[in-house]
Amino acid sequence: MECVLCRIGNENAVITETKHWIVSLSHDQSYLGRCLIVAKRHVGSLSELKKCEWEDFGEVVKRLELALTKAFNATLFNINCMMNDAYLKHPPNPHVHWHLRPRYSHTVVFEGRTFFDKEFGHRFNPEKTRKVRDNLRDDIIARMITYLGT
Amino acid sequence: MECVLCRIGNENAVITETKHWIVSLSHDQSYLGRCLIVAKRHVGSLSELKKCEWEDFGEVVKRLELALTKAFNATLFNINCMMNDAYLKHPPNPHVHWHLRPRYSHTVVFEGRTFFDKEFGHRFNPEKTRKVRDNLRDDIIARMITYLGT
Repeated sequence: MECVLCRIGNENAVITETKHWIVSLSHDQSYLGRCLIVAKRHVGSLSELKKCEWEDFGEVVKRLELALTKAFNATLFNINCMMNDAYLKHPPNPHVHWHLRPRYSHTVVFEGRTFFDKEFGHRFNPEKTRKVRDNLRDDIIARMITYLGT
Repeated sequence: MECVLCRIGNENAVITETKHWIVSLSHDQSYLGRCLIVAKRHVGSLSELKKCEWEDFGEVVKRLELALTKAFNATLFNINCMMNDAYLKHPPNPHVHWHLRPRYSHTVVFEGRTFFDKEFGHRFNPEKTRKVRDNLRDDIIARMITYLGT
């Protein structure tokens, strides 16, 4: 059964990768810098992750949080592993991935666009979506990469 | 500044603990077995977690997922680290904690009460709350402990 998350490395929104994880900028940028952290192997649940994968995940989260703080002055981060969608299909074919949403206590202007986290201090609004054009997406990625270090 | 999460070990809803994490049954049981995984030390962000804390967290998640699968036949798990509330106060005083919500493709009857995950396959409903009485809460904890192993 085809898994779109197994192919995420082929897309042109990749920000960084490590031995076990690959990070891709989300199409939705309603929370500036929102990204997806995807397990490189096709693993279906968190309970199947190995120690080395958790360790590496911690390192990825740390690098992303620090980069987003430097790049856009993010205030805090919401990190979620949901896996709901995979269970709408029969049979389900889940692939571990995390949604990271930076949250902002202040307005951010980046490349002339204004980002405002109206719900700061509260749950993110899942209905809010903001698709950005390819050139802005590339600029967001480039800015994040600048601060990601190696 | 007082931190309620530093005191969670003193409450009577503790399910298990490890070297670095403590797990407490949530007051809200709209998703049966919902629990809170709280860092034992007062650490304010995921980027400050040490390798050993991530490794230990992975082990806690694994034990909880397996126990909830055996105890209630949970289908999948939503795991979220939000930290929003802490930033409503000035100055913020965040303490790393995760919300684990088991999700169910089927109705579960436990101790004569029916639990139905109406939103299965979709985002959990944050408006839905179900406070349970102390004796039912204790029964849920006891059932989980039975399957947690050591």
